[in-house]
Amino acid sequence: MIEVYGHGGDRETAAATFGGAAADFVDFSANINPLGPPPEVLEVLQSALDTVIRYPDPGHRNFKNMLARRLQVPPESLSIGNGAAESMALLLLGLTPKRVGTVEPCFSEYAELAGKFGAEVSRVYGKASLQWKADVEDILQLMEQVDVLFLGQPNNPNGVQYGEQELRALAEAAGQTDTVLVVDEAFIDFIPLEQRISLLPVLDRYPHVILIRSMTKFYAIPGLRLGYAIAHPDYIRRMTAKQVTWSVNGLALLAGEACLRSGEVYERRTQELIAIERGRLLTTLAEWGCGVIPGEANYILARAPGTWSASAIQQALGQRGILIRSCAMYPGLTTSHFRIAVKDAESNGILLSVLGEVLEEERWRDN
Amino acid sequence: MIEVYGHGGDRETAAATFGGAAADFVDFSANINPLGPPPEVLEVLQSALDTVIRYPDPGHRNFKNMLARRLQVPPESLSIGNGAAESMALLLLGLTPKRVGTVEPCFSEYAELAGKFGAEVSRVYGKASLQWKADVEDILQLMEQVDVLFLGQPNNPNGVQYGEQELRALAEAAGQTDTVLVVDEAFIDFIPLEQRISLLPVLDRYPHVILIRSMTKFYAIPGLRLGYAIAHPDYIRRMTAKQVTWSVNGLALLAGEACLRSGEVYERRTQELIAIERGRLLTTLAEWGCGVIPGEANYILARAPGTWSASAIQQALGQRGILIRSCAMYPGLTTSHFRIAVKDAESNGILLSVLGEVLEEERWRDN
Repeated sequence: MIEVYGHGGDRETAAATFGGAAADFVDFSANINPLGPPPEVLEVLQSALDTVIRYPDPGHRNFKNMLARRLQVPPESLSIGNGAAESMALLLLGLTPKRVGTVEPCFSEYAELAGKFGAEVSRVYGKASLQWKADVEDILQLMEQVDVLFLGQPNNPNGVQYGEQELRALAEAAGQTDTVLVVDEAFIDFIPLEQRISLLPVLDRYPHVILIRSMTKFYAIPGLRLGYAIAHPDYIRRMTAKQVTWSVNGLALLAGEACLRSGEVYERRTQELIAIERGRLLTTLAEWGCGVIPGEANYILARAPGTWSASAIQQALGQRGILIRSCAMYPGLTTSHFRIAVKDAESNGILLSVLGEVLEEERWRDN
Repeated sequence: MIEVYGHGGDRETAAATFGGAAADFVDFSANINPLGPPPEVLEVLQSALDTVIRYPDPGHRNFKNMLARRLQVPPESLSIGNGAAESMALLLLGLTPKRVGTVEPCFSEYAELAGKFGAEVSRVYGKASLQWKADVEDILQLMEQVDVLFLGQPNNPNGVQYGEQELRALAEAAGQTDTVLVVDEAFIDFIPLEQRISLLPVLDRYPHVILIRSMTKFYAIPGLRLGYAIAHPDYIRRMTAKQVTWSVNGLALLAGEACLRSGEVYERRTQELIAIERGRLLTTLAEWGCGVIPGEANYILARAPGTWSASAIQQALGQRGILIRSCAMYPGLTTSHFRIAVKDAESNGILLSVLGEVLEEERWRDN
């Protein structure tokens, strides 16, 4: 198992486990835009390297104001984070919930951070029949018991969105039960606007809802760290009050500004690429008997065929220079679940070809 | 007043206050190595920009191992932080002190972070007769009342070091009173080894001592954020347990590795430049009647002459494109105290020339 830090994308551990150089792995274990950053971002970084001699703006003012215009929310509704993970940490530190709810399987940091900052975690579980979404009734019941509830939209690792009516029911209930509903939209930018289901346009009506977003996945800058929260200014103030000065670095802020300037072409190209390649991966994986969830995100939850375990597939692929995410440690899933990122056509081709070989060899050995 | 975030180096607020572009100010309000980063660092950043598409190593393994070798401590004694400020935050989150002690005047984040994370702050005060160091007796008394005590070595804003015997007495007392003594050595690299007074070589003997260091000041990369703590592995584990995954960005780690490779020439050149330029600034400022503290760091605490207030000097210089740090808000100091960074010869010449004019004009107006 290479998820010693609980996440994908850990090439250093992979290199120590499988041999080879960390940079040489084709990484399907982290869900990053295969197009790479918009060209504007690398240009800005290139020309702004000498700004590292100055402190970052502790108020994140330029980036925050640009983001406010883009999202059409007041700057007072935004908290900029050193990655979405910091935004989550800040809301836990600022709101000091005693009980945190998670809807499993989901991003492990919800429970991890809750534990770090002294909250008890209660869980409900998704159902295979609902593509690992949970019954809204179950979530509503959980909401009555917790102070903060985390929900992924689309959820990680299954890539499925909750429906508009479901989200609104949960947002309403948050007000009634005095629960803070945290909707983690870290991957929502990968979904075209027409299919995207977000509470953002109606956030005014739901002061108990906090949206968390990431700039690092869609814009392919996870090394720089940049995320944000959108919420009622009262929550934003409580979060900001717990933020360590200068926690967001200067290059991340400049890159973020460049991302926001990069425009719709990059967005469309990304969304189209992901839709096409996801379809291709889903079709082939389904043909090979991998139970796949046809989600809408830039990653696919699958189940290893036959007697394969996820860790055996991870091992076999890792030795061939390809990283995938075992999902064996996700509460609610099984030892045969794994997740792959949707990457560019060439990388996906490599994955399919190598995975095909691996499964085929095993079949021969069995006979 | 331009310290709206409590610190120097805030060019955005300066630009909003004085007009002009944020990047055009000559900044004596932040204490950054005037040589800029070692050339190796900018080269590494230049060639590693495309690594931003990958997650940083959540275990900071390469940098931590290099640092351990450099400092001759085991890696288990190191916690890598998103700036020294995060290291301070982590020790407060990990050790959960109820009472924190500060020795004023000092870096405002000690009290700021203590407040953020729920500790009450008790203070003792430096004495003008001791160049704003405090009586060790006073610090020892404070130690009996607090769980964690912060001490700057050299202290900011006065630039003075505590003596070897003083430090050892405090470190001994920390064990006896079960207080954690946090020695903030953020600026200690600016002091040549021969004059440097650090508990690092004897840290084994003092398990109640945590040293905090910064990579961003000496290596001139504050925009990237990188600091660390050296302490007993038990403390390190408690700090790491509160760290948000990936809080240290990937470029900071790569830059940090390049800093450690950059070698002694850069260190020596920096230390020599600072010594020469500090001497020059001290001499001229003293001639002009600014009460100066002849500290050993890369900044100078001074007192405005005559009826000048620090904020009036800051204002007058700010309008001429030069930023200095008003120290009026430091507990224990006065409204006439200000701090300037020691920069390169050219910048220091500009400062002296403009400051000379400002003081001269006022003298004429007075007569």
